[in-house]
Amino acid sequence: MTPLKNDRFLRALLRQPVDITPVWMMRQAGRYLPEYRATRERAGSFMDLCKNPELACEVTLQPLERFPLDAAILFSDILTIPDAMGLGLSFGVGEGPRFSKPVRSEADVNNLAIPDPEQELRYVTDAVRTIRRALDGRVPLIGFSGSPWTLATYMVEGSGTKEFAHVKRMMFDRPDLMHKVLDVLARSVIEYLNAQVAAGAQALMVFDTWGGVLTPRDYKEFSLKYMAQIVKGVTREAEGRRVPVILFTKGGGAWLEAMADTGCDALGVDWTTDLADARARTQGRVALQGNMDPSVLYASPGRIRAEVETILASYGPGPGHVFNLGHGIHQHVDPEHARVFVEAVHELSRHYHSK
Amino acid sequence: MTPLKNDRFLRALLRQPVDITPVWMMRQAGRYLPEYRATRERAGSFMDLCKNPELACEVTLQPLERFPLDAAILFSDILTIPDAMGLGLSFGVGEGPRFSKPVRSEADVNNLAIPDPEQELRYVTDAVRTIRRALDGRVPLIGFSGSPWTLATYMVEGSGTKEFAHVKRMMFDRPDLMHKVLDVLARSVIEYLNAQVAAGAQALMVFDTWGGVLTPRDYKEFSLKYMAQIVKGVTREAEGRRVPVILFTKGGGAWLEAMADTGCDALGVDWTTDLADARARTQGRVALQGNMDPSVLYASPGRIRAEVETILASYGPGPGHVFNLGHGIHQHVDPEHARVFVEAVHELSRHYHSK
Repeated sequence: MTPLKNDRFLRALLRQPVDITPVWMMRQAGRYLPEYRATRERAGSFMDLCKNPELACEVTLQPLERFPLDAAILFSDILTIPDAMGLGLSFGVGEGPRFSKPVRSEADVNNLAIPDPEQELRYVTDAVRTIRRALDGRVPLIGFSGSPWTLATYMVEGSGTKEFAHVKRMMFDRPDLMHKVLDVLARSVIEYLNAQVAAGAQALMVFDTWGGVLTPRDYKEFSLKYMAQIVKGVTREAEGRRVPVILFTKGGGAWLEAMADTGCDALGVDWTTDLADARARTQGRVALQGNMDPSVLYASPGRIRAEVETILASYGPGPGHVFNLGHGIHQHVDPEHARVFVEAVHELSRHYHSK
Repeated sequence: MTPLKNDRFLRALLRQPVDITPVWMMRQAGRYLPEYRATRERAGSFMDLCKNPELACEVTLQPLERFPLDAAILFSDILTIPDAMGLGLSFGVGEGPRFSKPVRSEADVNNLAIPDPEQELRYVTDAVRTIRRALDGRVPLIGFSGSPWTLATYMVEGSGTKEFAHVKRMMFDRPDLMHKVLDVLARSVIEYLNAQVAAGAQALMVFDTWGGVLTPRDYKEFSLKYMAQIVKGVTREAEGRRVPVILFTKGGGAWLEAMADTGCDALGVDWTTDLADARARTQGRVALQGNMDPSVLYASPGRIRAEVETILASYGPGPGHVFNLGHGIHQHVDPEHARVFVEAVHELSRHYHSK
């Protein structure tokens, strides 16, 4: 493999000195880019795009052609694992995901098997290999997965939800079954992420989109516990470098200390927590990734730059900060506003890193 | 007025001793009750029901006929104020609220005027008077309003939203305009709540449904500041008793200390914060209201009782706790499960209050 030309993202995740704060955007390959919409059109459905390594590679690289981003992230979906488990995933037009065979009964749970990443999820590892070749060492490639709890919410509900009625009923009334689902998922995620690393992923991120809908007790028992299992189970070194692991629970700002206890390298932080507060509470045990409200990208360039400065000042001097949005970029954002954001991070962060 | 036969709710809000922990449920008069659905059917649209004081009284009392609740809450909607401002509120079938004239431009903002509660909102104060007569001192009646920030989100977006694109753009790019909207709303809410107290409301609650989508800085500047203005501006005594004020920001668990600083009497707490933690952080300066995950009502009666016990133990002995759900009751809950919940609070809380 070509040596990495820009490793500022990996260095920041390990709290090593950098010249400027690295930056990337969650969902940076996405619908706000006209070139993404064009490729998506050619691919067919959203899952057709995910399952085509050449096209997944194409959209992964699109934002890097536009903006000086410090990391690429595999273009894929968090629901590839439940799809590979045979639950019948589809995306209706203008709708969220839907499973034709939701996991509700004891029999449904007992039927769940760990997918072989090099068989049923081969299109993902093929995409990783293709992207690494295409990147040619430009920036590191992030592999990712949904958290077991987050995957379970979709699998048990059968679709997106506001109330989480089915999955919470299982959690409250059949915690034994719920744990069985989560354990199969945690083991599946470990194999999946390890396969991504073997194929070339250089950092890993676990997206816990729905951990924030739980009580503090239930979060620890049903979400964090399985993320800790993943942190312990995944390959942490490849190509002679550490493979950093980032955990991100949306709405999990109250639980950063417990998340840092898992032994992960970095925590994603959404915009409802100040980075100064997050940094003080985690005491340099982990790097922090975040945390601009993605809606700031709807504001004027001047306002975007001001918010970048506020967040840089909130984190303060020294290493350990990866700039990002606090959630995925919204689809109606003007790409030129994304450019202002990325460039502002580089320009305004320099003096936080000078000696 | 008939003297109050059950004042446990008002006493708990003022952190005075009670025999058992009082309990009510947000949205207790709602779609989970077949008798509510029948009245709603007769009324016509949802707003027709809100605007008919006799029928609003009928649905307010329905849950009290079924369960030994310790408070009634005025049946109404948080969007009555923007509706009275002439923004053209409607509720599509199976949809959320929609305003035909959203507030976007400087001219839109300058056109906003404070509604006269005894004119444009007369149906609300009439409902309060009707309900107080019908209650005949059984339990206290809670009046309420949406918070200025929450009302502004609907007014500027023109409907419900996930991204808050328009209102946040105004907040980021035209903070002067945003503050103008919020100031008109805060003054409108004060007049509205004072009219409710004059008509007979015995406690007041401000629902800040969307404060939790802000950064800590923006929350303080654009939401909490105006709730503090309301706390200072509303009548705090009527009929020889204190009228307690409850503030509730969904997802605001990180900001309880700042919320208590407003001088309110009590804070609503959602289920993502432990009551033990909330109590320690607010140091007995306020009462706490909450905080069972409404989804627990989908679980078995035994599990519901266990969760009630966990929450009672988390708050611990002594006064200052009003039991509630952490958000409105879901529409598909079995009313018998609501009964198990209410009865469990009374039964299991007794020994937390014995000398």
